[in-house]
This record gives sequence, structure tokens and C-alpha cells, in this order.
Amino acid sequence: MHITTFGEIMLKLTAPKKQQLIQSSHFEATFGGAEANVAVSLARLGDQVHFVTKLPVNELGDAGIAAVAKFGVNSNDIVRGGNRIGIYFLERGNGIRPSNVIYDRSHSAFADSGELDYDWPAILANTNYFYISGITPALSSKLQSTLLTAVKICRTRHIEVVYDANFRGKLWSSADAIAFNEQLMPYVNLCFVHDEDIYDSFGIKDAFDGNRRNVIAQKQSFKESMALIADMYPSIHTVASIIRDTYSVEHGKWAALLFQNGHFYESPIYDLTVNAEVAAGDAFGAGMIHGLLHHFAPQDQLDYALAAAALKLTIPGDFNLASDSDIKAIMNSTNRSINR
Amino acid sequence: MHITTFGEIMLKLTAPKKQQLIQSSHFEATFGGAEANVAVSLARLGDQVHFVTKLPVNELGDAGIAAVAKFGVNSNDIVRGGNRIGIYFLERGNGIRPSNVIYDRSHSAFADSGELDYDWPAILANTNYFYISGITPALSSKLQSTLLTAVKICRTRHIEVVYDANFRGKLWSSADAIAFNEQLMPYVNLCFVHDEDIYDSFGIKDAFDGNRRNVIAQKQSFKESMALIADMYPSIHTVASIIRDTYSVEHGKWAALLFQNGHFYESPIYDLTVNAEVAAGDAFGAGMIHGLLHHFAPQDQLDYALAAAALKLTIPGDFNLASDSDIKAIMNSTNRSINR
Amino acid sequence: MHITTFGEIMLKLTAPKKQQLIQSSHFEATFGGAEANVAVSLARLGDQVHFVTKLPVNELGDAGIAAVAKFGVNSNDIVRGGNRIGIYFLERGNGIRPSNVIYDRSHSAFADSGELDYDWPAILANTNYFYISGITPALSSKLQSTLLTAVKICRTRHIEVVYDANFRGKLWSSADAIAFNEQLMPYVNLCFVHDEDIYDSFGIKDAFDGNRRNVIAQKQSFKESMALIADMYPSIHTVASIIRDTYSVEHGKWAALLFQNGHFYESPIYDLTVNAEVAAGDAFGAGMIHGLLHHFAPQDQLDYALAAAALKLTIPGDFNLASDSDIKAIMNSTNRSINR
Amino acid sequence: MHITTFGEIMLKLTAPKKQQLIQSSHFEATFGGAEANVAVSLARLGDQVHFVTKLPVNELGDAGIAAVAKFGVNSNDIVRGGNRIGIYFLERGNGIRPSNVIYDRSHSAFADSGELDYDWPAILANTNYFYISGITPALSSKLQSTLLTAVKICRTRHIEVVYDANFRGKLWSSADAIAFNEQLMPYVNLCFVHDEDIYDSFGIKDAFDGNRRNVIAQKQSFKESMALIADMYPSIHTVASIIRDTYSVEHGKWAALLFQNGHFYESPIYDLTVNAEVAAGDAFGAGMIHGLLHHFAPQDQLDYALAAAALKLTIPGDFNLASDSDIKAIMNSTNRSINR
Amino acid sequence: MHITTFGEIMLKLTAPKKQQLIQSSHFEATFGGAEANVAVSLARLGDQVHFVTKLPVNELGDAGIAAVAKFGVNSNDIVRGGNRIGIYFLERGNGIRPSNVIYDRSHSAFADSGELDYDWPAILANTNYFYISGITPALSSKLQSTLLTAVKICRTRHIEVVYDANFRGKLWSSADAIAFNEQLMPYVNLCFVHDEDIYDSFGIKDAFDGNRRNVIAQKQSFKESMALIADMYPSIHTVASIIRDTYSVEHGKWAALLFQNGHFYESPIYDLTVNAEVAAGDAFGAGMIHGLLHHFAPQDQLDYALAAAALKLTIPGDFNLASDSDIKAIMNSTNRSINR
Amino acid sequence: MHITTFGEIMLKLTAPKKQQLIQSSHFEATFGGAEANVAVSLARLGDQVHFVTKLPVNELGDAGIAAVAKFGVNSNDIVRGGNRIGIYFLERGNGIRPSNVIYDRSHSAFADSGELDYDWPAILANTNYFYISGITPALSSKLQSTLLTAVKICRTRHIEVVYDANFRGKLWSSADAIAFNEQLMPYVNLCFVHDEDIYDSFGIKDAFDGNRRNVIAQKQSFKESMALIADMYPSIHTVASIIRDTYSVEHGKWAALLFQNGHFYESPIYDLTVNAEVAAGDAFGAGMIHGLLHHFAPQDQLDYALAAAALKLTIPGDFNLASDSDIKAIMNSTNRSINR
Repeated sequence: MHITTFGEIMLKLTAPKKQQLIQSSHFEATFGGAEANVAVSLARLGDQVHFVTKLPVNELGDAGIAAVAKFGVNSNDIVRGGNRIGIYFLERGNGIRPSNVIYDRSHSAFADSGELDYDWPAILANTNYFYISGITPALSSKLQSTLLTAVKICRTRHIEVVYDANFRGKLWSSADAIAFNEQLMPYVNLCFVHDEDIYDSFGIKDAFDGNRRNVIAQKQSFKESMALIADMYPSIHTVASIIRDTYSVEHGKWAALLFQNGHFYESPIYDLTVNAEVAAGDAFGAGMIHGLLHHFAPQDQLDYALAAAALKLTIPGDFNLASDSDIKAIMNSTNRSINR
Repeated sequence: MHITTFGEIMLKLTAPKKQQLIQSSHFEATFGGAEANVAVSLARLGDQVHFVTKLPVNELGDAGIAAVAKFGVNSNDIVRGGNRIGIYFLERGNGIRPSNVIYDRSHSAFADSGELDYDWPAILANTNYFYISGITPALSSKLQSTLLTAVKICRTRHIEVVYDANFRGKLWSSADAIAFNEQLMPYVNLCFVHDEDIYDSFGIKDAFDGNRRNVIAQKQSFKESMALIADMYPSIHTVASIIRDTYSVEHGKWAALLFQNGHFYESPIYDLTVNAEVAAGDAFGAGMIHGLLHHFAPQDQLDYALAAAALKLTIPGDFNLASDSDIKAIMNSTNRSINR
Repeated sequence: MHITTFGEIMLKLTAPKKQQLIQSSHFEATFGGAEANVAVSLARLGDQVHFVTKLPVNELGDAGIAAVAKFGVNSNDIVRGGNRIGIYFLERGNGIRPSNVIYDRSHSAFADSGELDYDWPAILANTNYFYISGITPALSSKLQSTLLTAVKICRTRHIEVVYDANFRGKLWSSADAIAFNEQLMPYVNLCFVHDEDIYDSFGIKDAFDGNRRNVIAQKQSFKESMALIADMYPSIHTVASIIRDTYSVEHGKWAALLFQNGHFYESPIYDLTVNAEVAAGDAFGAGMIHGLLHHFAPQDQLDYALAAAALKLTIPGDFNLASDSDIKAIMNSTNRSINR
Repeated sequence: MHITTFGEIMLKLTAPKKQQLIQSSHFEATFGGAEANVAVSLARLGDQVHFVTKLPVNELGDAGIAAVAKFGVNSNDIVRGGNRIGIYFLERGNGIRPSNVIYDRSHSAFADSGELDYDWPAILANTNYFYISGITPALSSKLQSTLLTAVKICRTRHIEVVYDANFRGKLWSSADAIAFNEQLMPYVNLCFVHDEDIYDSFGIKDAFDGNRRNVIAQKQSFKESMALIADMYPSIHTVASIIRDTYSVEHGKWAALLFQNGHFYESPIYDLTVNAEVAAGDAFGAGMIHGLLHHFAPQDQLDYALAAAALKLTIPGDFNLASDSDIKAIMNSTNRSINR
Repeated sequence: MHITTFGEIMLKLTAPKKQQLIQSSHFEATFGGAEANVAVSLARLGDQVHFVTKLPVNELGDAGIAAVAKFGVNSNDIVRGGNRIGIYFLERGNGIRPSNVIYDRSHSAFADSGELDYDWPAILANTNYFYISGITPALSSKLQSTLLTAVKICRTRHIEVVYDANFRGKLWSSADAIAFNEQLMPYVNLCFVHDEDIYDSFGIKDAFDGNRRNVIAQKQSFKESMALIADMYPSIHTVASIIRDTYSVEHGKWAALLFQNGHFYESPIYDLTVNAEVAAGDAFGAGMIHGLLHHFAPQDQLDYALAAAALKLTIPGDFNLASDSDIKAIMNSTNRSINR
Repeated sequence: MHITTFGEIMLKLTAPKKQQLIQSSHFEATFGGAEANVAVSLARLGDQVHFVTKLPVNELGDAGIAAVAKFGVNSNDIVRGGNRIGIYFLERGNGIRPSNVIYDRSHSAFADSGELDYDWPAILANTNYFYISGITPALSSKLQSTLLTAVKICRTRHIEVVYDANFRGKLWSSADAIAFNEQLMPYVNLCFVHDEDIYDSFGIKDAFDGNRRNVIAQKQSFKESMALIADMYPSIHTVASIIRDTYSVEHGKWAALLFQNGHFYESPIYDLTVNAEVAAGDAFGAGMIHGLLHHFAPQDQLDYALAAAALKLTIPGDFNLASDSDIKAIMNSTNRSINR
């Protein structure tokens, strides 16, 4: 079984030591992007995964490829060309100060790419799962039509389409997201959508009342929204959502819900210390896909995926480098503080 | 409207990674000092502010000026000369281990300076607010008389005198502080005095019983002390105080009280994760002054100032680099963990 | 009064910034090992202490010696020779991710050493306390017999033998530990054994039910085990144990129990933020020995030792560099967050 | 006397330790750009200087301003707006490996700016010297016409126009440069043009035979080209050029030539170790302007400017932070290796 | 055309900033080893290359694989198992102080591996070139017989065997090297042997008189030795050697000689600044193989290989990350110091 | 045989990466001072050495002790008390930019110390060599009289007095140095005085013509001055001097001269790359003393001392950590670039 993920990998420049960007004399330089993150997670779990994107012909493009190849992701289908690599700057928050992202991804090789760049029949030739996210269509209309082309081919070839709705308010409006998602969703088989993104991505009124301290208590309302999505699009067999109570940048409670083939499943609730604030949703998605690939029971899919996400929150950078045994140990944890 | 702050800026050498000083192979090198901190805060908020001090004619003196000029503080009135820049070493505590300061500021250019160094009529020519703190008179009797000279000029020119009582037990005794403050206070219009400093600075018996976990509960007693200060010195229209419950180096609750023109105001209480343990009081002071300059209502002055202080606790270094919009976002926070 | 500690000091290579080892482009390089840690703690407290080990004749061996000599430990009895220095890699956990140790200490100069390497009569000539731990016998049978030789000499010379049972499941089995301890314990005078190690080291069924969140509540059961150890080995006058509730890598509650000359003592319970996850037990042991050397009352021994351990958890590296006054300040703490 | 410089300041991201970009886990983050560099140099020499550019309204734009304000440059005329800050990546070469620049400056706030952004009559109101370089017109035709507008105003107001021809082959072609320079040069009073740029910028056939080891020997030919430039444009009173023999990234010989009011001047030849490979030409330009402002004799202008450039090569980053006394000490150097 | 390289990859721990090991509070952590270095070089040049070794099942083993996979090396044939990863410590010299290596590679997974670990028929199934070095047989007699097994299979399958004689005096004696090489060389087709290693590896008396400043002048003598090797072993069609004049750690002259199919070729002589003192020979070997694979003329093979080696000396770490265009630019260099 | 050295050890704060102090966001924190440096050198060579100074009772004082104890120096005679540790800031030069020292050592514990602080009869009880330098008397007249007291006791006890004249123009005038040296020299047995310090320390007109590129050629003149010193003070049996041609911060030639018991000896001349610009003279002094202690022939004393100094120039920090075998390898060097 093979997975292909398609999206943008960016150079991520992070102010060290929780500094504000204006204080920093150097930036940590890593790479990340939802679809690359999912690819790396799956490769670390031992799955066969291709990551597809477009990167410029310069050393930063090479570095983007090396970043995923390092962990066993197949990079042979990455297209080279275009003007620049996308960049995002991250200022890590702490306590009451939220983390802040400055996107500098306009005019990147990927953002400027379109259908002519990707030979979908070849790229999808040996794939069983095709993973995409709501970030790519937010970048350009050319990418929207590219995505639609790809998922239609998937449909004809019985490739499972996995879509993480991932709403990014700095990239497009909720109205645009909803409009695009209406076109895409009829081709989607698995959908991940977290917290209040249900409203921004699908226009489904959620129960979220704006108080981020009190989300999990409203899980019933989230379940109803999840079922509604599955109802609207018959191709969908799985909807999975993380819901979070957020107390501060470092502290929150995390739970997850799964609606699969007409049944609901609920994870345990984790009380978590958060070290690395990004890409836990991607780790969750990879965990769900891994569970499906390996025929986990639905409850195990969900618990495994949430344990992967929880572990990601402890790992610096965008990639979840946790191994299968690390994830399983968290699922069976007895509050160990050291293994020696 | 212009503000002038007067005091010492020191080279601050901090052991990295919460090491003890004896473990460190390098020190982080930044600059700070209550009055410089206030100046930088105000400049970041867009106000016109001059910082006045004395620094030696060497590259460390240049660096001290660059540290404030970088953020828009006017440094034209800084006097050059003297033997050395003051230094303070900071060992960051954590958990139950308190942070520790080693002062190495004796014989600094500023500590050795006196009335002949500062041309007060020129320095105060275009100023509306003159900010000083209880640290300067703790350094020498020459500086005490310099301060008295300056505030008397302020009185004749209707310049508002802002005094942060800031008691430092490693620099002078409570008895000396009380004696000096009795001379100074008749010229003060705004007074900031936090927690148990009310006793050390003014000899007013406070309610503090030595249990730092349980200060906020005694706010009534603090209010009485604040009113007493205002009673004693008719020039004073504003007394503002932060009161804190301290659980560990990283965790505490913060609240603030304002007595202005005969009325009391209370802030909300913040439950805070503390990253940077110094200079939150200076951020508070700058927030109060900014609120007054921009004609905020008293409750808004207080809430804005405490939000600024709370935000400062998340920012490394002595300077509060938070912007006006950052502060207002905290005042309206809904527990965001990331903006993207 | 002099103390001699005997064991391995290793090069400790730690992934920085809570990274996983696979992410790190550099490792922090420090030195540590239970017996070296105890020696450094005692030296920092002003006691006369020798550390005995075997280190290779290369610059890493020199560096191991320098690491303890730096803090006043006498290194004159360290034997030089053998092939390599032992190494351990540490991946610092956080939140729900436990810290992980990779030992690379096989074939080290110390692990390969044996009786011919140590001139016990000379080494023990001026010593009053001989400190060893359960790590050394876990390394080889040669070291087991070396230890037995040494403690028999101690018996004839009335040198107090201090044994920290310190079980390490990655080095030997519980069965082997129990078998060796049965040979050693008749020569031991003070025994430290923490939490569930009572079972692994001595085969005494403890009350620990596998839930690390709920250990302290079972202190009565631990006391019974401690008394049982003292009963079994008449040479023992002191058994001391730390018991911990662990919530996450950074958060736990710590308490300690002492059984001395037939009486039980209990420490207060600390609610602790944990920064440095290793070597707190060694700090505790050093605190106990220091208390005995200086004729503290039993309750004071225990409280001092636990305060030392608690403070160690705030200090990076393996060595507890806290001073006597730092420890006493913690014993009398009023939640200070900064001293200035 | 006031100077105004106009151009782009970029975020400069440099691979540390002479790594290739693909090896770096962090980048040094500084700021630079020819016209900002000249402004900082002049400010460090005590001159009154404004830097004008356009920067986005985000924290990276703030940081760009802070970078020059830190050293005393007046930033009040900087325009805010646009999409992004320009970036350039630097891979430091060494030995036979040349340094490599990756420009990522398209679509920056400055590159997209044009005449409507700059209120030239106000900006030039109190200026005596207006400094620009050949980098700005290489960015867009909008900036070309903006520059022509500005220099025409300078002509009417008797403001001296200083132009560093600075050819950048990665930004435009020689043909485009020559075409633009023909329009600009009639308004220029001082022209700096180094080494083989004479051909690329002005189409004047130089003597350079492609052997960078042997440039200084051909100084007579360079002089002829310099005189030719002065002949072609009667507004020009000063042409100054650095000529270099390059042996490796770290080693070269530097000399400079000046043609002023019909007379030639030659500097001494420096045999230099090069630490920081960029911005020495900007330091030279600032040195020339400083000399003119302070009425140095022509030979002193040239020698001072070349000493400044030579010193810049020893200082990390783009800014020449050397002081006037540092530069004069180099002019009178006796091979000191330490001052103590 | 595919290449397979076989050997050990080690964790390389380097003291930063040219410190001695005893001074370092952290070590740079990279990976290297002759055969891995060759594999990475070839992958960066776009060739298809497999690296074969044995690594332990722990995160350090994973990291060793990631280190080569990052740059496109195929790691599918790497065997997992054994006790530890080999380590080497590097103290970078400078000036007159030579760099110093401490090997800690005994008992590594690779050093303990033998014939049962490697399925040669499968590993060599699709390979055209098999690259090995004199370091592997220096590690154990088991590895010697493994190597002989492998090269005999190569002979039957017409796979070219490339052998870099690479003598390491800290691992085995010259006598042992000569004895093994006599067994291996009948199966070798290309042999690389540098400087005085001719004597240590083959017992051929070279002209080297112990003066490392004056080696290149003796090239005639080296040529005779090279021809002698080719004469002794008819399977050999190519012998290539680097010869160096060494003035200090940072400065030397490098040249190379090639004897191919009965003809001699000489490279130009480079006068080089040396930044990274290791693995230039591996870069040379990769350059030679790349030239052969791509049918370069013999002189071009040699010049390309030496340019690759010269460039490697400017790149930190063990891997030559230079691209094909970088190498060709050096071959055609005109002393550029920056590309912009 | 024991040596005692007496002088100040300072905290040394160095701008990293050859930055100017104004650029640095952190400083490297090490410790150094001529007499401490000599002590560490001797301890690394295996000699028994005490270092005597006065340090404040704070963690920086502890750190100063740890810095020398780490390498085996006996610190038992160090006096604790006073106000602060002396500090010096170092800006490393490069190329034509000289390194620059900012002393901040006034009012240090040592600078303020005097005769009452040092119990000379006890300190000198078991010493054979007493090492002092010209830096101590430059700090205060109290220290001048302390030194005279100590050397008089040495005379009565037949302890050899070693004096490194070490002139520091930033601490005192040449006239003051000459006046003090006239009092001290009658008690000195070995005198080290380098380059042009002969004039500043003793008023002996040397041949130095101000051209630092051409000092060694004037060695005959230096020899005459050395003999003159020995003539003036009959107690002196040894005068040793380093003479240097300085080309840049990184490059010079070094030689040394010895006048011992009426005979002259000359070292070979080293052409050196200089990495660490300070404390080579101290390494030379330690090498001379070590040679005398171990009865080296005079030529060997000189060659060993200069090799030690040359090696020091390659080692970061103030301490010469070279071992005896490292030094001897340099004496017999054949331009090795790596040992492996």
C-alpha cells in the first residue's frame, strides 16, 4: 500500500528561545508544511510514501527535498522549477502570548504552479491513498483546478482521497473555502476537520461559542456536525476531528472524535503540556491513515492518531518523528518520566 | 506630549538555559534598567520619549545607547564619560529555585554621576512627563540630590513627575529609602509601588504576612495603604500597584490596583506562566503613562498596564517589545495559541 | 571526616532543546554518574571527598577528571588505563514523552576494570564514609567482587558503607540485583532505595500498583518495606527513600521517608516543576551523608536531603551545584521568585 | 550637513560556520543593503543621515528599521506598506569556493514601490547629499523613473548626487544598466565604480583580462576609463574606484583610485585578510562622502575611504561599525595585533 | 549504472571552534566514514548509489541512515542489529597543531559484523561499481573475509571493484595492511592510494623523505610506484593518487596523478586554504568514479576528481556536498570571491 | 618541587565570531590572567602548583576558582572577600584590525587587596618557585608593597623568584613601571621580558624602530639589552624574551632568546598562524619554569618554552592546555595536519 501527499513544503524560520522576531539575531531553519509533515510521519511509521510538490532549482529547493528524504520519504516525483521557495516565519508564543505566523509564500514555486506541472496519471500510478489539505486550494485558483483534476483521476482509479480541511484565515476567506470544498468533497473519502474549522470550511454552524477553554464539553454538537458532513457527501466513510480546550500556549486538553461508517468513537482526553505548537493535526492525520492501512479497529485508529498528535506536541519542528513504539507506549502510558 | 526617563542602563549578563553562573561558558548580553525599560516600552507604543543617563566613552557605552535607540528612544541627551558601565548578572531560577541577581554596578559612570553632569533646564525643556524610580537614589547621595533638583524644576514647569518606588534591598536599606522618599514625594504626581514594597519604601505597615502565595486576597489592606500615600502627599493624583500570588518562578497570579483622583479601580486577575522574570513592573508603568497620555479612562489605564505587564512576562530580556495591538489583544484574549 | 565514592563517570551527550536524537546537529557534552554526582554535591557543600574510578589515558579521560576536580573533588585516586570512556546519550522528554537514555558503556575502562586496578587499603586509608551504588555491580561480575572486597575492608576499619540501591533495568535483571544485594547488604550501614526499586533491588513486594500518579499515598506500605530491610541486615542503621507522584516529565510531587535507628521520619511534600530529570536521587544521598557528617538531627537530615534533591531538579546537568545556603533557603522558602 | 540615502534594506540570512545552505539548521539573521550600509557607516562616523526605503507593516519591517536606528540613522522618512521584506541568502565561501548569494527580493515592498510612495520634496528638504546605487534601478522600471524624479529635484536644489554604479548581474543585464545610466549620469556629481563594473555599467572597455589575480597592475587603464566618465558627464567632479587582486575568498590586495576635479590620486596598496566579504564598497563610499563633508584633501578622502573599506572586511555583517578613530588608526597602522 | 559502497558510518563528535576536547561544553554531531562519504558525493552528482553497512536498532542507528538518505543515497540494503554505533571524536587543529582523532569504534555493529550479515548476491545484484576502502579490513578479520567474499562475486559478475587503500595507523599495522592487500588486490580494478600510504599499504618504498612540505616535487617517484602497483596486479586499469605539500593545518598544495591503461596524467597544482580537514580523498574517489561512469577522458577524470577534493576542503563535515556545476566552476575558476 | 603563582584572575568576556562588542548578543565567558594562566600550564604539565589571589564571596568568585581547579591547580590558598571580580572584555581582531581589550578591573577584590590579606609565611611555606608578573604592581601601590614583602621572604627562604615584566600601558605608565621594577628586580632570579617591553619596563633603549614587521632581524640589539638586565641585577641568572615579527592578527613569526648564566641561546623561528591572540607569553613562562624544574639543558628550556607558546596560539581561551607530549611533538614536527 502506497500513499502520495501533495502540497507545499516551506522553509520555516523560527525565532529562537521564544524571542519576538525583532529580537532575534538568528532563526532556526527547518522545513514544514501539512502534506510534507504527513508524509514524514508515515515514513517514520514504516509506510511507503511519496511527497509531491514543486521547488525551485536552487540550494533551498535541494534543502527542501533533503528535509523529507532524510526520513525515508520518496521525493522522486517532486517537480523542480519556479522562482522561490515559500517561507514562513514563526514567533513562538508562551503563556498568554499566542504564537504568530508571518507567511511569505506568495509567488513561490508551488503557489505559482498549476496543472501543466504535474503528470497526475504517472504520479498516481501506484498509489492507494492520496492526501491533500485545505491549504493548497487557498494558495491559488490554478491549484484549485489542479486538485480537482487529481481527485477525479483518483475516483476513476479507486484511490482513497484524504482531505484535511485545515482552514487558514491568513490565506483565504471562509466563503472561498466553503465554495471550493463544495466542489472537492464529492471526491473525498476521509475528511479531517478540527475544532471550529467546521464552520469556516463547511459553513456548518458549530457549537463553538468563542471560549477556547471550553470546547470539549461541546462534543455532542461537534458530533452532529461530523455526521452532517458525512450525510452531505456519500463518498465519505470517515470524518475525524480533534477538539481542544486551550488554557495557554503550553497547556490544553485534547480529545478526538471519529465518525466511521455510521458509528461514533471517542478518544480519551489528554491533559497536555505543549512544547511545539504546530503540526499536531498533521500527526493525527498520519496516524489515522496508518491505522486504516494496517486495518486497525476504528477505536484503535482514533486512539493511535490522537496519541501521535499528543506526542507531536512534545517534539520540536514540524515533523512528527515519533516511532510506532513511541506512540503505542503513550497509549499505554503510566506516567513514566525516564526510560533507563 | 513627550516623556523623559532618567536612570541607569546596565549591561545584563544572563546565564543561558537556566544554568547556574558557575556552569556557563557564555552569557547572554542584553541591556536593561527600569528607566530604560520604560522608555523602550513607550517608544514601541509610539510615544516620543527621551532616555537620559551617563555612559562611558567606550564601545560598551555605545552599545548601551544602541540598545535603546534601536527601538526608537531618543538618546540625544545621554551624557558620556565616567569609568565603566554598570553590570548585573542574572541567574534565571526555575521551579522552587529563585532567580538571583549579582549587581556589579558600583563605580559605574551613572553611579558616580551628579548634578554637574545633567543640564536639567535643557533636558526638561520639552518634556511633559518625567519618569524616575527608587533605584537611582539607592545608588548614591549625589544622585539623590540630582533627583531633587530635577523634580523641583519639574514642579515649576508643570511637568508631571512619575515615580516608581521600586525598592532594591541589595542597594540600600529600607530606612534610607523611607528617608529619601519623604523628601521626594512632595514633588511626585504619579506613584507606582508594588506588593510589599509599600512597607520598605514608605514605612507603611502592609498586610503582607510573608506568604507570597496569598497576597491578592489581602487587596483591601493594600488599598488602604495606597490611599494613605495619596493622603500624605497632596501632589499625588495617582497611585498604582501590582499585587502577586507567587507559586513558583514560572507560575503566579497577577492583579493590579489603581487609586486615581480619589477613586479605586481593580484589574481582573491573571493566572500566568512566567517566562521572563524581570521588568514587568516597568512595562506596567509604561502602560499607565501611555494610558494617561492618550486619555484612557482610569479602568482602561489599569487594565492596559496590567496586560502590558502580563505580556512582558512572556518576552525574553528586559524590554517590553509588545505593540499596542498585542496588548489590546491580551485584554480581549480568548486563549488563542496561534495566529495563522 | 572524609568520604570516598566509587563508580563510573560517563560522558553524557544530550540532545539540546528537547530534540529527539535524530534531530540534533550537536549534543551538549557534560559528565555524570551517580557516584561522581554524590562526590561533587559533597564537595560543593564543603566536605572532603575523593572520587575513585578508572578512566582511559586520552583527552576524554582527562576531561572526566576535570569535570569533578572543577568543583573541588579530590581526583588523586583515579586510576588511568583501559580502552574508552563510558558514554550515555540522553533525549530529554517533555510532557507525556519520557526522557530516554541510550547507554553506550560496555567495554569502558571502568566496566572492564577489576580488583587488580584498585589498591583498596590505600584508597580507604583516610576515609570515614564509602559510598557506592547499585549501578556498579550491574556492570560486571568483576566489579561485583571488587565491591565485596572493598566493603569487607571497610567493615574491618569501621568505615561507614553507604549504598544507593539504584536499580537500572537496562543494565541487569532484578533477579541478578537481588542476588548481589544479598551478598553486599550485610556490610552496608546506610541504604537509599527509592520508589518501586524496593521490589527490583530486594525482592520485597511493595505497594506500588503501577500508577505513578499515586505513589505518595502508599507511604505506609513503603515504610513497612524500609523496616523490613533494616530487620534483615543488622548492620544497617539508616534506610532512606524518596517517593514520587509523577504527572508528567515536568511535574510531580516529591516526598521522602527515613528509618533511622528504629524511628520513622517523614519529609514535607513538594509540588515540583522539574527542569533536569536526572540525579536528584544522588543529590538526596549527598544531602543525607552531609547531614550525618555534621550531626544533623534525623528529621533535619531528611528535610535537608529532600530540599537538596528538589533543588537539583532545577539545575541543568548531573551535578547538584546548590550551596548549603541555597538548600537551607529552600527549606525555609516563602516562594520567592527573584533575589535582588 | 545632512545626507539622505535611498534604497532597499533586506533581511540577510547567512549560513553559519561557512556551511552550505543545505547543511544549516539555523541562519544568522541580519539586515543589509548598499544604501542602508552607507547610512549606518556615516552615522557611526557622527554624520547626520536619513535612510529612505519602503518596508512592510509587520514585525520584519519593524526589525529592518530597528537595524539602522540602532546605530543612529534617522528612520523617520521610511515608508510603510507593501507585501514583504526583501530577503537574500548568503552562503559564505572560503578558499577556492566563492560566496554565493540567492536573492529572494522580487515582490518586496521596496521592489514594488514607485513614485507615489516617496514625497521627494519633503524627503530632500534638508539634505545636502543624496546617495543612490545601481542596485535600485535594477529592481524595476518604476524605481528607475522614481530615481530620475529625485535626482532632477536634487539638481534644482543644488543637492549633491552620489551614485555608486554597483552592477549586479543577477538583477539586470549590462545593456539595461548602460541604458539607464545614460539617463541618470547627467545628474550625478560623484560616481563610484569598481573594478570591471566600468564595462558592465558604462560600456567603457576596460583593461580587465578576466584574470582576477592581476587587476591592480592595470591601473593606468582604469584611470583612463575614469577620466572618460568624467569627460562624458560634465556634472561629475569626482570618480572613485576600488581595484582588487583576488587570490582567494580570504586573501586579496586592494587599492583605490580617485579622479577629482581633473587630478588623479592613488591610494597605497593593502594586502588583506578578508573575513566578511560584502559591503566594503559601501564602506568606501561612506568614507569618501565623510571626507568630502569634512573637507578632507583629495588624497586624504581616498586614503580614509580605502582604510574604511579595508576595515569593513574584518567586521561581520553588512554594516561598517568602525569608528573614525579605528579608521585613522588603520591609516597609521604599525601592525598592532592587540591593544591592551 | 549503479554504484554500491560498503563500509562503516560513524557518529562524528567534533569539538567546536577549534577547541580542545577538554574545553568543549558541546560537540557538533555529524556522521561520516569513507564509504558513506563516497556514496553521498555520488548521489549529489546525480548518480544512483547504494550504501551498505550495519547499524544498531536505536535512534542513533536511525540517525546514521537519515544522514545519507538526506542526500539521496539508497539505504535499503543497510543491515540493522548489533550493539552500538561507532563513534569518532575530532579535535580540529589549526596552524601548527594537527587535528586529532580519537576512535571509539571497537565493538560497533559494523566492526562486529561478518559474512552472515550481508547477502552479497542480492546486494550486488544490480551494481556496476563496488567501492570499498582499506579502513574496513583494518577493523576485524571477519570483515577481511567478508570483503574477499564480496570481491570474488564481483569478479564473476564483471562488477568493477574500486579500492581506496586509505591506511589508518591507529587501526592496524602496515604489515597487516600489506598482507591483506596482497589477497585483495587481484580482484581490484581501480586503486586509489595517496601520498606516503603507498609504503604503508603496499610496502612499496616511496620517495617520501618525511618532509611534508616537499612531496609534490617527488612526483616522478610516486609515478613509478603507481606503475609498479599496476604491474603487480593485472586486473588493475587505474591507479590514482593525491600528493600534497603540507605547510600548516590550513595551508597546502595539492596535486594528483593518474595512471590509466598504461598512460600517466598529471593534474594542475592547487594552492589551497583548508577549512575542513577530512574526507577530501573520498571526494576525489567519488569524482574519479563519476568521471568513469560518464566516460570522461582520463585527464578530465583526474582534473574533475581533484577539483572535487579541493572543493571538499572548503565544506564543513565529512560529506562533499558540492554539485557538478560547483566542481566544474572550480575547474574553470577565475578567482571569484562572490557570485551575486 | 612546588610553584606558587600570585596575581589576578579575571572573568573574560569575549565577543564571539570576531564581532565587535556592539554587535554581540552574547559573550563567551572564560577566565584568565597571566599568573593563573601560568599555574594552569604547569598543572597540565604535571607540576605541583598553587595559585593565590583574592576573589569575592559570590558565585563568580566560585567560578574563578573552579576555572583553575578544573585543571589540577591547587586553590587552597585563595583568599575570599572584597566586592567584585575583575572583568576584561575582549574584541578579537582579524586581519588589519587589532584585538581590543576593555579592562573593567578597578575595585576588584584583588585590586583592592593588600598585605593584610596574604599570609606570606604560610603561603610560601612549601614553595620552590614564586611566579609574579608586572601586571600586579600596575594595579595599586598596596599590591606593590605586598609584592615586595613576598619577594623578600622568598630571598630569605631561597625560593626562586620568577618575574614576567609584562608591561600593560592601559594600567600604568612606563615611568611607574621602571620605578617599581628598580625596587623589585634585586630580588628576582628569572626575568621574562618580551619585544619592546624592555624599554617600557626597564628604560633600556631597545632597537625597536616601531616597525613590527621587522623585529627578529634586530635580535642582536635585544641580546644586548638582556645582558644589560642581568648585569644590573646580580640575583638574576636567567633572562628570556620572545621577539616577534607581526604581519597581521593571524600571522607572524616568533622566536625566543635566552641569556642564562652568562650564555646566550636562540630558538628556531616559527612562521605561525595565530588563532588565539593572548597568553602565549604566559605559556612561554610556564615552559621555561617547567624546563628548569626538570633540569632541561638551557637550549631545551628555550625550545620547549617557545613550542609551548606557539601551541598556545592555536588554543582558544587564556589557558594553555597543551600536554607535554603535544609540546614535544611540535618541537619535532613534520607538518602533520591530522593524527588518525
